[in-house]
Amino acid sequence: MKPSMLLPDEVSSEAKTSLTKKMRDQRITLAHGSGGKAMRGLIETLFVRTFNNPVLEALEDQAVFPLQELSQHGHRLAFTTDSYVVHPLFFPGGNIGELAVNGTVNDLAVSGARPLYLSCSMIMEEGLAMESLAQIVLSMKQAADQAGVAIVTGDTKVVERGSADKLFINTAGIGIIPEGICISVHGARPGDAIVTNGFIGDHGVAILLARNELALESNVESDTQSLNDLIAKMLTVCPDIRCMRDATRGGVATVLNEFAAAAGVSMYVHESAIPMREPVRGACEILGLDPLYLANEGKLVAIVPQERAEQLVATMQRHPAGTHSAIIGTVKVSPAGTVLLSTTFGGTRIVDTLVGEQLPRIC
Amino acid sequence: MKPSMLLPDEVSSEAKTSLTKKMRDQRITLAHGSGGKAMRGLIETLFVRTFNNPVLEALEDQAVFPLQELSQHGHRLAFTTDSYVVHPLFFPGGNIGELAVNGTVNDLAVSGARPLYLSCSMIMEEGLAMESLAQIVLSMKQAADQAGVAIVTGDTKVVERGSADKLFINTAGIGIIPEGICISVHGARPGDAIVTNGFIGDHGVAILLARNELALESNVESDTQSLNDLIAKMLTVCPDIRCMRDATRGGVATVLNEFAAAAGVSMYVHESAIPMREPVRGACEILGLDPLYLANEGKLVAIVPQERAEQLVATMQRHPAGTHSAIIGTVKVSPAGTVLLSTTFGGTRIVDTLVGEQLPRIC
Repeated sequence: MKPSMLLPDEVSSEAKTSLTKKMRDQRITLAHGSGGKAMRGLIETLFVRTFNNPVLEALEDQAVFPLQELSQHGHRLAFTTDSYVVHPLFFPGGNIGELAVNGTVNDLAVSGARPLYLSCSMIMEEGLAMESLAQIVLSMKQAADQAGVAIVTGDTKVVERGSADKLFINTAGIGIIPEGICISVHGARPGDAIVTNGFIGDHGVAILLARNELALESNVESDTQSLNDLIAKMLTVCPDIRCMRDATRGGVATVLNEFAAAAGVSMYVHESAIPMREPVRGACEILGLDPLYLANEGKLVAIVPQERAEQLVATMQRHPAGTHSAIIGTVKVSPAGTVLLSTTFGGTRIVDTLVGEQLPRIC
Repeated sequence: MKPSMLLPDEVSSEAKTSLTKKMRDQRITLAHGSGGKAMRGLIETLFVRTFNNPVLEALEDQAVFPLQELSQHGHRLAFTTDSYVVHPLFFPGGNIGELAVNGTVNDLAVSGARPLYLSCSMIMEEGLAMESLAQIVLSMKQAADQAGVAIVTGDTKVVERGSADKLFINTAGIGIIPEGICISVHGARPGDAIVTNGFIGDHGVAILLARNELALESNVESDTQSLNDLIAKMLTVCPDIRCMRDATRGGVATVLNEFAAAAGVSMYVHESAIPMREPVRGACEILGLDPLYLANEGKLVAIVPQERAEQLVATMQRHPAGTHSAIIGTVKVSPAGTVLLSTTFGGTRIVDTLVGEQLPRIC
């Protein structure tokens, strides 16, 4: 079991105990967002100590570093941001902290970038338990180490009780895209293969069940994980990946619709080829949810040249983040801008973009 | 009067009307954060159209650009983030949108960096008026143009009614620090001069009065403005600025305490030299607030070599963002780590860092 899976009242990791001991307050107060001593204490005791790197330790208002790699011809900078508002903060398989690191790392990685640095900004509700915050910050550090990135700058704000729901985290990230990589939402061409790196829908179902609003039990865990190492391996086998996105909010269906619309092509997906866990399939049947729209937090969809697809998938399957990788479909000429699903019953249906909300606050 | 000063129900700017017309919904719904069509519509109609630059228009999950300047020897990257939770969203002199641009631009600029790119992430409460959002986004664009930066990537999340207070904005920013600039919190030396660029406390008092919780009236407006152009001019006259910060949360007192603690020196400030508007002084007297702790959103404090201070201040006074610049004190050897104020009554008192909160949600 990953440390991050543990719920705050079940965990007693040495690191967390040591951290919470050092903080005199049991709960976040407005003073922790005031710019004064209480805020500085929180930043130094919790954030700087945990994230532990010299750029952050400088405690300047901004992170400063050389980026020699950008002096290499053709290298470009990638820059992204995401705010995380997931409810609940802790869920089977992870917590908001890991999501905030992995999600932004993945948004960089799907461009072909090597993620390097993250920022971390916390909006905390007055009364947030310090123990929960410490656990979340530790999970962020573990996720950052796992992904090989450093959290180098940050900000903390506190709002009155009732003005936010416990904790929102924003991370922004920067990375370097090497010369020659050109992954774009517009890149799909008829004949290309559609590839994913494993079971879809785990995160969506894990969150749904963690809310305890349904009389359903299951051992499904969030798939939150960083994909940058997997993607680096993918690019060695297939440097001409056309399109790639992580299938978070809106799921695989939304990503494929974006690819189809941008390139004016059709995405033809085989339902039987889509990797899905039995409990996820079961939960979707009972609840009337379409798994193609369920959020994932460690799954990518890539469009790649057909001739390299099999070798690519074989490479992905040898990576821990891609054990259940599969080719799930093909890009076709028409109907342009459309995603089609050939069902296990032999029919074909259009998989449109959702207008509204299948499940709010999933990430 | 700046367009941004206008409250949302008083304004009818052509741009805003045109924008809100294009959006069918009058209010933000959960669907606007779902990853589906409603979210895409909002992003394309409001954010991309308003922020208007090719990097953002690519609608990839990350902004991608070359940064040729980093190939120059000794140039470094600056990276910063801030979340804005100011209450109320609109106040005399500005709104949360300008604050979110100017604040992050200033956090870059005080390092000597030339700010280049911002990200923008919105956490919206279900029910937020589309007209308010449109006005705020327009203000962000105006502030970005004014500062010469582009908003190149972003994110939108929506939480249920009651789970946030209308709107929180995170911006992260990146900029380039040229070779030879070395501004640091540790840089103050005995004998240096302490300089600021004008009236302090305006933002804090404007917010306080905008909350309508006090039977006080005043025409004080927030000083929200970007300082990067002023700072660029300052660096031409005085490239060896030792320390520089914008005096936001915690005010001038907090910045000076940080400088004093980091360098182990004393900051000796003359109360009579501190530029302050009469209504701010009056409000502080009535409410028992210390103006040195009031937040500013367009004021910096710099520690500079004494011999260049006068010429520097003269240069600053010729810039619109520095008309009322002044030398407000001197760095001394002892008492180390302390800020001392020589009062207008002839006494001297210690100006300590606040422990708690003078005014929550000021930015």
